Amino acid sequence: MLNFSYHNPTRVHFGKGQIARVAEEIPADARVLITYGGGSIKKNGTLDQVLEALNEHTVLEFGGIEPNPTYETLMQAVELARKEKIDFLLAVGGGSVIDGTKFIAAAIPFEGDPWTILSERAKVKSAVPAGNVLTLPATGSESNAGAVITKKATLDKLAFGHPLLYPQFAVLDPETTYSLPENQSANGVVDAFVHVIEQYLTCRENSHVQDRYAEGLLLTLIEEGPKVLTQPQDYDVRSTIMWTANQALNGLIGQGVPHDWATHMIGHELTALYGLDHGQTLAIVLPSLMAVMKEQKKAKLLQYAERIWNITAGSEDERIELAISKTREFFEQMGIKTRLSDYGIGEEGVAKIVDQLKRHNMVKLGEGRDITPEVSEEILTRSL
Amino acid sequence: MLNFSYHNPTRVHFGKGQIARVAEEIPADARVLITYGGGSIKKNGTLDQVLEALNEHTVLEFGGIEPNPTYETLMQAVELARKEKIDFLLAVGGGSVIDGTKFIAAAIPFEGDPWTILSERAKVKSAVPAGNVLTLPATGSESNAGAVITKKATLDKLAFGHPLLYPQFAVLDPETTYSLPENQSANGVVDAFVHVIEQYLTCRENSHVQDRYAEGLLLTLIEEGPKVLTQPQDYDVRSTIMWTANQALNGLIGQGVPHDWATHMIGHELTALYGLDHGQTLAIVLPSLMAVMKEQKKAKLLQYAERIWNITAGSEDERIELAISKTREFFEQMGIKTRLSDYGIGEEGVAKIVDQLKRHNMVKLGEGRDITPEVSEEILTRSL
Repeated sequence: MLNFSYHNPTRVHFGKGQIARVAEEIPADARVLITYGGGSIKKNGTLDQVLEALNEHTVLEFGGIEPNPTYETLMQAVELARKEKIDFLLAVGGGSVIDGTKFIAAAIPFEGDPWTILSERAKVKSAVPAGNVLTLPATGSESNAGAVITKKATLDKLAFGHPLLYPQFAVLDPETTYSLPENQSANGVVDAFVHVIEQYLTCRENSHVQDRYAEGLLLTLIEEGPKVLTQPQDYDVRSTIMWTANQALNGLIGQGVPHDWATHMIGHELTALYGLDHGQTLAIVLPSLMAVMKEQKKAKLLQYAERIWNITAGSEDERIELAISKTREFFEQMGIKTRLSDYGIGEEGVAKIVDQLKRHNMVKLGEGRDITPEVSEEILTRSL
Repeated sequence: MLNFSYHNPTRVHFGKGQIARVAEEIPADARVLITYGGGSIKKNGTLDQVLEALNEHTVLEFGGIEPNPTYETLMQAVELARKEKIDFLLAVGGGSVIDGTKFIAAAIPFEGDPWTILSERAKVKSAVPAGNVLTLPATGSESNAGAVITKKATLDKLAFGHPLLYPQFAVLDPETTYSLPENQSANGVVDAFVHVIEQYLTCRENSHVQDRYAEGLLLTLIEEGPKVLTQPQDYDVRSTIMWTANQALNGLIGQGVPHDWATHMIGHELTALYGLDHGQTLAIVLPSLMAVMKEQKKAKLLQYAERIWNITAGSEDERIELAISKTREFFEQMGIKTRLSDYGIGEEGVAKIVDQLKRHNMVKLGEGRDITPEVSEEILTRSL
């Protein structure tokens, strides 16, 4: 196991009726800005529950944060928050709203252009405290310290993180997810699946607990994930998926092991250039990446084949190929297409994406830092 | 899944060389009391590493905390700490030292007799901040908020806990465990195993992630545990066991599920009356408890049989019986005897233990609150 230091200070309130907890989590004299997205939280009653809980707090609202939240929109919230002397942020929504709110939290006290936090890795020195009410299990953003932000003007989609950005609390009420559109539920399952894979399917390390945890999350997603499509109002199914997605990226399973994240980095460029959903980009890239990197990942791919898909017969190559097929089938079963051509992207797109990767200095990706632009090109070509 | 709120604020520093971190974790102007047990940390160099790291801090020492730490000894530390105006506690040792230090932390500012924190569940209102350097993986005390203390005068062994008692940090350096005596290493593996079982082998709840995590820890202990006896200086083995024992009782796998803890409660009486090691008491009680409670635990026992021991053939009863035998064999393989008679305790002992349980109001144990003194008697009789 590699050395690590782990500290996750976010308090998680999980279950029915837990939204009421926001009242005790936010100081009574705070000036609260509630941030949200396109308004689904108004339709499904979540915003009403939040406002009811905070009926003795001073509350302002900022809506309209996009999927793949943009710097341009978030800076409007920063301006509002500065003007209104906001001292607590409450994100109500999915990963995009929570990611965006982390940027707002860091940007409010930031001196200079906050975009440099992403573009130049400028140091975050303070942040406005924040909490969240999660309505879309997928990114794990509700209890980690990372975020991904897009600059519309330049099509840059970049990640950042800082320990100051751990939410103080996260409310996970599975009932808020009953009304999610099918594709969002499905994207969430695929996203969580790939988060686990990025921390699991690497070079072999002595990491028995991390491996078993990761495998437990993968098996749970495979067994329970498809049910979100057929039983969207089943509390047990929704609660399982909500907790699984949280665990997939709260940092725990990634302690002491190498990380990959190449699928995410390549996927981000696909979203920035072509507007694909994050989950779609992962479903396109991962199977091809597994195939291209199969020598480097051989030991773990064989373990994955056996423990996740019960594949024990055949040559090593056959077992690995079958495990990759099963992975692709699982994404397709979730209703997510896994080929660039399914989204109308052809060979010319591959070159464009590789150019973007170079521009963002994503030239040594993966746990071995050996996914060069040439390897990314091979991965994308295989995904056509 | 049951509703839950989870917050574990302890920062974990894991790996070789991490002991140096105590210097940055403890305020420079703190008056630190280092607490420890019988002196093995002096022999194996751990105390030297700690003192070296704290060479610019003001440090006092308090040694002699026993296995099953006693109120009587701990109150001497409380007296010293009060006199010396100690404002930070650093436990260096195993679960007994860390548990004892939690009591010291709560007792220092407590008004009245601190024993009432255990005997009358008197409210803990403040605690001196504390951290620890773990040297015996077993109890998980290094990153949870619970402790078990014994009053020598009355042979009471009682548990307590409070969120204020979460250690601020825990250093887990597997190299500190190389020199552990075999029986302590073995007890630690059994203790961690039973911690998982207490939170897993209950009535069935919708808890896919928790089940998979628990099963992952059990499989890891079964596969890697025996190696601590044959490869005591293997870093990979020691680090796996150290991380597994931590995860077994840091609270995570127990969120949203029913808990049992009857094996522990009965076991505590065995230790208090007869001085058996904690791990020994668990190895004696658990197999019999599984047998006596097999109707109530049937669904989970069958899952345990299949997923942990690969038992899929035979009637339900046969599968359960075989899983119980396998459990007993595992404890024996670790060198821990599983019968009361192995420790010279006969039928008269059963009555004594049941009397103690009644005296401590341990009359409705288990996840179903249905382990009455009569059922405890049946369990103990089966353990003869």
